[in-house]
Amino acid sequence: MSLVTVGSVAFDAIETPFGKTDKIIGGAGTFIALSSSFYAKDQKIVSVVGDDFPQSMLDVLAAKGIDLSGLQVKKGEKTFFWSGRYHNDMNSRDTLVTELNVLEHFDPIIPASYQGAEYLMLGNLSPQVQRTVIERLEKRPKLIAMDTMNFWMDIAMDELKKTLALVDVLIINDEEARQLSGEYSLKKASKVIRAMGPTYLIIKKGEHGALLFHGDNIFFAPALPLEDVFDPTGAGDTFAGGFIGYLAATDDTSFTNMKRAIIAGSALASFCVEKFGTERLLEISHKDIEERIEEFISLANFDMVQTV
Amino acid sequence: MSLVTVGSVAFDAIETPFGKTDKIIGGAGTFIALSSSFYAKDQKIVSVVGDDFPQSMLDVLAAKGIDLSGLQVKKGEKTFFWSGRYHNDMNSRDTLVTELNVLEHFDPIIPASYQGAEYLMLGNLSPQVQRTVIERLEKRPKLIAMDTMNFWMDIAMDELKKTLALVDVLIINDEEARQLSGEYSLKKASKVIRAMGPTYLIIKKGEHGALLFHGDNIFFAPALPLEDVFDPTGAGDTFAGGFIGYLAATDDTSFTNMKRAIIAGSALASFCVEKFGTERLLEISHKDIEERIEEFISLANFDMVQTV
Repeated sequence: MSLVTVGSVAFDAIETPFGKTDKIIGGAGTFIALSSSFYAKDQKIVSVVGDDFPQSMLDVLAAKGIDLSGLQVKKGEKTFFWSGRYHNDMNSRDTLVTELNVLEHFDPIIPASYQGAEYLMLGNLSPQVQRTVIERLEKRPKLIAMDTMNFWMDIAMDELKKTLALVDVLIINDEEARQLSGEYSLKKASKVIRAMGPTYLIIKKGEHGALLFHGDNIFFAPALPLEDVFDPTGAGDTFAGGFIGYLAATDDTSFTNMKRAIIAGSALASFCVEKFGTERLLEISHKDIEERIEEFISLANFDMVQTV
Repeated sequence: MSLVTVGSVAFDAIETPFGKTDKIIGGAGTFIALSSSFYAKDQKIVSVVGDDFPQSMLDVLAAKGIDLSGLQVKKGEKTFFWSGRYHNDMNSRDTLVTELNVLEHFDPIIPASYQGAEYLMLGNLSPQVQRTVIERLEKRPKLIAMDTMNFWMDIAMDELKKTLALVDVLIINDEEARQLSGEYSLKKASKVIRAMGPTYLIIKKGEHGALLFHGDNIFFAPALPLEDVFDPTGAGDTFAGGFIGYLAATDDTSFTNMKRAIIAGSALASFCVEKFGTERLLEISHKDIEERIEEFISLANFDMVQTV
């Protein structure tokens, strides 16, 4: 099935305890599209870059089968740039630089060829832009998933709630779920948030895995214990990309299949953190992913027997 | 198979955001013995109380089939007392009072009827006392599991390492694993700690579940997402009790069976936190536990299908 991804295509500069990069390729849209391309074969991206963005990277995305006709290249403008430094625990980071550049007045354009897409992934962007994309699709997709972050809860909660009311799946982390709901218990938070619109909620907990809530069903997906997290940048987007790509490829939005999609996303995210930026995602094969998924199965699998 | 549990039988006074107790029954040995009694049918406790400890509670333990002949009642002395206040997140707490009382000079006595036990659970106590119990058993048990805490790492690391060298399974939480190993990554920590003696390591992560490490195998057990944690006191001991009780009852120390034992322990711990102290453990039936285990199965279960 056809998947449209909206998200930033950007430059990042990253410092971790393991090293430091110059400007490298990043952006939620980039990670989502690369990750979902392992599953989704009909994929289209909506984004914007400046004319400083390397054609070679656009060629890489195109070679992955990603339709770039909705990616605007703004002449004489600069690509979005983010720079950050991770702390020793890799769970927290300081933003050093944010240059919005082309994102400041981003008006998403939906090419006619994108109309009719069954799956829509809204990467982290302003909730107004996310909603504009939904409104510009003539036919509502079968499934709309969305990411957001605490930044939008701080400065644009009303806009965020309007967008949330239109989506099926919200993918956020535990801190964001607590902020959005005002509840510490993630189970309570899940009820408050799902009353805002999305009937499916995925709460990412980093090294502690992820939770999927829907109706009275809960799924707890493990995270692979890693020796080192080299660079966490993009891991959440890679998770979302694997998730939505798996759903689009299998065209099955049942709870049972969403569990599989979360494992696929978790496997892809576990590769993402092994090197800086998109580097690892550009190296791995589908076979690598299948082997990693086997590790998840062995990690989480147990069978109870009757004892009494 | 026969299980010997060593651990404190004590008084606790607890404050949580939900309320406050007077002196109630607590202690690692109490929680472990109560929890394991749901599985282990031949169970013996080694502990010490003062003559202020209520006979009615000893009767409750005896009625659960727990052999109390190794529980010393010290005339004219007082039972160990701990008082603490939990913070709003329920993950951290302040100790308000610790009165060692009878524990200060605890010399564990092993009745002749305890000799030959196949399973030994060393609840959190000084590592010297834990080691003394091992030394006083004429035949080494088939499996020795042990709990400890950061307190002993701070003041008695050398003693702790001597005891660790003698046990098969260490059960600690993530902070303790990081302190004991000096490694932040739990996967790295698990290697350092297992080089100290225990070939099995369980790292408890509270609301994030638990990890079991053995050789190159890792198992990630989920935790049940709860609306409220009423009182976390004893949850770790209840987990350990369910774990060792399940192993003793099934007499199978394979990795596959340890996974089941962890799920049993997790189910029991999820009841423990629902009320103050031992209250909930004294109410539930085996059927309640079986139903809770079904929730864990549904929480963690997924089946991957071939997509490409």
